[in-house]
Amino acid sequence: MSAVWTLKALGLGAVGLTLSVEVLGWFFRRFGSKGFLKEVIFFPTEFACVEHVFEPTLQCLCPLPHGLETSLARLLRHVLSAKSTLDICVFAFSNMDLSRAVLALHSRGLVIRILIDKDYGGITGSQIGPLRRAGIRVRYDSGAVHMHHKFALVDGRRLVTGSLNWTLQAVQKNKENVMVTEEPRLVTPFVQEFQRLWDANDPEGCGRAAPLPQQGTERQGTERQGTERKGT
Amino acid sequence: MSAVWTLKALGLGAVGLTLSVEVLGWFFRRFGSKGFLKEVIFFPTEFACVEHVFEPTLQCLCPLPHGLETSLARLLRHVLSAKSTLDICVFAFSNMDLSRAVLALHSRGLVIRILIDKDYGGITGSQIGPLRRAGIRVRYDSGAVHMHHKFALVDGRRLVTGSLNWTLQAVQKNKENVMVTEEPRLVTPFVQEFQRLWDANDPEGCGRAAPLPQQGTERQGTERQGTERKGT
Repeated sequence: MSAVWTLKALGLGAVGLTLSVEVLGWFFRRFGSKGFLKEVIFFPTEFACVEHVFEPTLQCLCPLPHGLETSLARLLRHVLSAKSTLDICVFAFSNMDLSRAVLALHSRGLVIRILIDKDYGGITGSQIGPLRRAGIRVRYDSGAVHMHHKFALVDGRRLVTGSLNWTLQAVQKNKENVMVTEEPRLVTPFVQEFQRLWDANDPEGCGRAAPLPQQGTERQGTERQGTERKGT
Repeated sequence: MSAVWTLKALGLGAVGLTLSVEVLGWFFRRFGSKGFLKEVIFFPTEFACVEHVFEPTLQCLCPLPHGLETSLARLLRHVLSAKSTLDICVFAFSNMDLSRAVLALHSRGLVIRILIDKDYGGITGSQIGPLRRAGIRVRYDSGAVHMHHKFALVDGRRLVTGSLNWTLQAVQKNKENVMVTEEPRLVTPFVQEFQRLWDANDPEGCGRAAPLPQQGTERQGTERQGTERKGT
């Protein structure tokens, strides 16, 4: 009888151990240090072609090095990983590779929103004009000296943020950092802040009650879609 | 006999369950979603006095609101939490409250290193001069169009990073973000990058082999301590 009970106890112990290992494994994968995406990318990017990020099967003939997973290629892959939405909140946006990625997502039918600084949205080479002409919704932040954020939210759950403005110089010349994470405690505040700023700069909202601009000037915080702004 | 074995099995089960809960609790605290510090702070800061951050017992008589845990107060607390080292890598540094915090840490004997952009280290109101005069080690980055980072490492394990330059305008006027985390997978790359940039701008290193600057100009990447640089 005791031998049977011993066997039963051992069997129960084995089952318990197996279950514990399974639960711990799941717990580690779900909540553990490696559970959520966490990546840091430093710039300036390496000097190389990024055509393979957009067209993996295309044999590019440009004279740059090919097939490298440069900092820019990694950043582009995160942007292009969007499946449903992309919210961009940046001080300046003149980088043509990043613009191409956003346009590619737009052509796939994703919902894209861009919030940009009212002054730096119109710098030389700004991509805001082409993006708006393509039908992407853009709002200009009007409530601060500078809207100095440099972040994007991929599908509302992947945060791409750092010191990097979305410009050619920042990507190719400056020392910069970009952090990519899906950690909810870091992502959620940015999701809320984007929505807050987007709503605050709604031209159909309180902006309507603001005094009309004088002739020759433009009202700040206006959403534009399909029409051009100076310098973009 | 079977009753005794049943009791033993139940007792063993209870011990196993207790241990499992303990282990899971530890695991969650150590590696779980809430295990490592993760905090996001948005700017501009609220308009309030931050004297209580420096001198909690002092009754400040200034006309500003008191005792508020503003965005700036929270940022200052993270900087002041340093116990042994503080590494700062910023594009521009003219905020006097942040400078006061760094000087307070220096007076406590902490090892402080500051890496700053070669051009923006000398903006109007820059605190680099006073910090250097106090004996803090400063190096100017010389290897890029801009050293555009805005991060600090507290005791080599707490990362403070984001869009915020350490200036008065950024803190009081701009829309900015600062992320604070102790998540090793995010902190470690910044620790390595700081050391890489610090070494790369060592005036005792390869900088010595560089051609001497012409009269009236300064060599870039030079560490200065105790002497003044123009505009700081």
